[in-house]
Amino acid sequence: MLKGNNVVLIAVGDELIAGLKKEANISWLSAELMLRGHDVVAMEVIPDQEEVLVDMLDRWAGRVALIVISGGLGPTHDDRTREAIAKFLGLPLVAEKDVYDRIISIYPAELKESLERSGERQAYIPSGAQPIFNPLGSALGFSIDFKGTKIFALPGVPQEFREMARVVLDFFKKDDEVCVGLCKVVGWPEIKLKDHIANIIREFPANVMFLPEPNIVTVAIKGPKHIVATLQGKLMKLMKGDILPENASSLEDAVVKLASKLNISLAFAESCTGGMVGESVTRIPGASSVFAGSAVCYSNEAKEAVLGVPREVIEQFGAVSEECAVAMACGAANIFEANCSASVTGIAGPSGGSERKPVGTVCFAVTCFQRCKSWTRHLQGDRETIRLWSNNIALEAVWRELKDLAEKSGRNEGSN
Amino acid sequence: MLKGNNVVLIAVGDELIAGLKKEANISWLSAELMLRGHDVVAMEVIPDQEEVLVDMLDRWAGRVALIVISGGLGPTHDDRTREAIAKFLGLPLVAEKDVYDRIISIYPAELKESLERSGERQAYIPSGAQPIFNPLGSALGFSIDFKGTKIFALPGVPQEFREMARVVLDFFKKDDEVCVGLCKVVGWPEIKLKDHIANIIREFPANVMFLPEPNIVTVAIKGPKHIVATLQGKLMKLMKGDILPENASSLEDAVVKLASKLNISLAFAESCTGGMVGESVTRIPGASSVFAGSAVCYSNEAKEAVLGVPREVIEQFGAVSEECAVAMACGAANIFEANCSASVTGIAGPSGGSERKPVGTVCFAVTCFQRCKSWTRHLQGDRETIRLWSNNIALEAVWRELKDLAEKSGRNEGSN
Repeated sequence: MLKGNNVVLIAVGDELIAGLKKEANISWLSAELMLRGHDVVAMEVIPDQEEVLVDMLDRWAGRVALIVISGGLGPTHDDRTREAIAKFLGLPLVAEKDVYDRIISIYPAELKESLERSGERQAYIPSGAQPIFNPLGSALGFSIDFKGTKIFALPGVPQEFREMARVVLDFFKKDDEVCVGLCKVVGWPEIKLKDHIANIIREFPANVMFLPEPNIVTVAIKGPKHIVATLQGKLMKLMKGDILPENASSLEDAVVKLASKLNISLAFAESCTGGMVGESVTRIPGASSVFAGSAVCYSNEAKEAVLGVPREVIEQFGAVSEECAVAMACGAANIFEANCSASVTGIAGPSGGSERKPVGTVCFAVTCFQRCKSWTRHLQGDRETIRLWSNNIALEAVWRELKDLAEKSGRNEGSN
Repeated sequence: MLKGNNVVLIAVGDELIAGLKKEANISWLSAELMLRGHDVVAMEVIPDQEEVLVDMLDRWAGRVALIVISGGLGPTHDDRTREAIAKFLGLPLVAEKDVYDRIISIYPAELKESLERSGERQAYIPSGAQPIFNPLGSALGFSIDFKGTKIFALPGVPQEFREMARVVLDFFKKDDEVCVGLCKVVGWPEIKLKDHIANIIREFPANVMFLPEPNIVTVAIKGPKHIVATLQGKLMKLMKGDILPENASSLEDAVVKLASKLNISLAFAESCTGGMVGESVTRIPGASSVFAGSAVCYSNEAKEAVLGVPREVIEQFGAVSEECAVAMACGAANIFEANCSASVTGIAGPSGGSERKPVGTVCFAVTCFQRCKSWTRHLQGDRETIRLWSNNIALEAVWRELKDLAEKSGRNEGSN
């Protein structure tokens, strides 16, 4: 069953088991390895218990090409990874004084004493293991071979893990034969998309995955290079207007990149999303070149006072109405002096719905150089889901407006 | 090694291994089980491969009291969970027509045909297993016993999984002897907090975990009821002003609850957080009773035009200055007509820093009934980390202002 490029990733930590801290190290590494064509057979999250890790190693070592362990290398009593690996291998722990001294020499003098003390644990690795220098913390990492399996042990602090995992990724070079292509399709329900591209999928033996998020479905294609390229080409052709450009990692990224290229300034007016649209856009480094601001006007009074929504509009049509959405979007374009703006006003629940406007009713408007469109969607799910959908629908609208502008001005979004 | 209340949780899905979708089902269930006093020995994330799941069952069945499997029960060819379990147990799959008919009777007529077709896979469970009704989807769940291990198989769609996992939680009732207490400490660096409460920790044999997030450290205490209560009491006494009330799950939750009780309206002015503060607050259901709005003014022009920050302030002190923060907070209180407001303006990076104001320099102000405070922090980390810290520092400031008000008015935050 297990082949030469199979990988097992293990995260050690009571805090992960307690569900109080999200595991992010090995899931990140899993994606990196997959994109390089390797097969992750299992990701294991286990508590800080020596015998559980020994048991895991007993299970996988010798059966897969690579095991990477995250966590349990710190200075406290509950860090047991080095001891567990030494015990499993039947090897003594020995001090790697040179590398450890190099690590602690970076620290300021006042921490020296406690760091030297922590070296009584942190500087030790199994006899014969290769030390891995830690540029961001004091825990030493290491790698060791066992029956054809390369075992890496790295500290669990996320920055340290990611930095030191480069050694793993360099060691496990990209398999040029296998690659992964991602197509991010906007605005299609997964079930309709599946039918729409059924012929393409049937025709190809490649491994196609659907990864649905609110208002975006990522189609991931894994396989030999030429198959992935052909399949991606066919998908692009069939879905052309609805696929994000390859250089965009998300809708907000596509919006910021395209607005930058067109030199368009953006603004938002938000009610039920509460700031999520602005927050999404400012997550992208460089957003400041295009993003003017967002008016989060949750109360009706704020919609009037800040965005200039006429009181009559709210009284006659309600705050959740296309009329109000239009006034909000125009207000945002006005107060932020932006070329393009979008608004969201809706009922995210769990309460606040009515028979005519149930929970999930969300109204949108988008303006671009005076043009204005509005529409209403009826969304399903809990408060958070409805807010996420609303956010991505508003961003989709801005992206499509910008695409229209780009086409009219003869600029192609994909090229840079 | 393995005892009577040990649990293993398994999530099945290529999309999880690909790191393109975050595992959330079994990590949620793990926390729920831990809070009920059970020990999760391992959480396993594996691909959609029959032999890998058989291998996992071979490893754990008979050794732990409970195995819960999430995913792989859908209608498509890559859903292999029911087949893998049947294969492992050496049992045939049999149709549970009655329960499946009850499930699909809820659906509208136009989906009936394809649902009936999907029943050719989804209605089947291992012979002798107990079917578990799915109130939110069409995949049938089931449970089955094997050598003292209860095995549950539930669909991976998050809403369906959580709903159906109630059966698991009911089956695995709370162990009254073991409980978990959480103390959320605000505004303390983890390393200082550890020293500050070192005596308490030493004195008690209970299992204490530190779970640091930006500007909040959750101290989790697991152990017999009376120990947890005593320890929690001591912590409360020592850290009193800095611990969130027990009914608050987060800083924003504490802010919304306390503002509601005091009938105080809130507003924010955000620059580098880009809407995150408003978004955090509106994540809490019922925020609408206290939250007026947030002005996300990213550009200097917007700070002037929308928030009324005097041009001279920006010219003389810069947009990242306490003077600008004060003007922003006052502007927000003004335009949203709010009793209490907070502002954030800073350099989140990766670019935009200077020698005098390096990346991570963030200025804050908080106003409450005309009183106004401002301060500057120098934060470390990447763009996202600096933004999260900024968000939680601003929320902490509002929370402390509200606590002051509550104390003056003689109302205690903790009681409801």
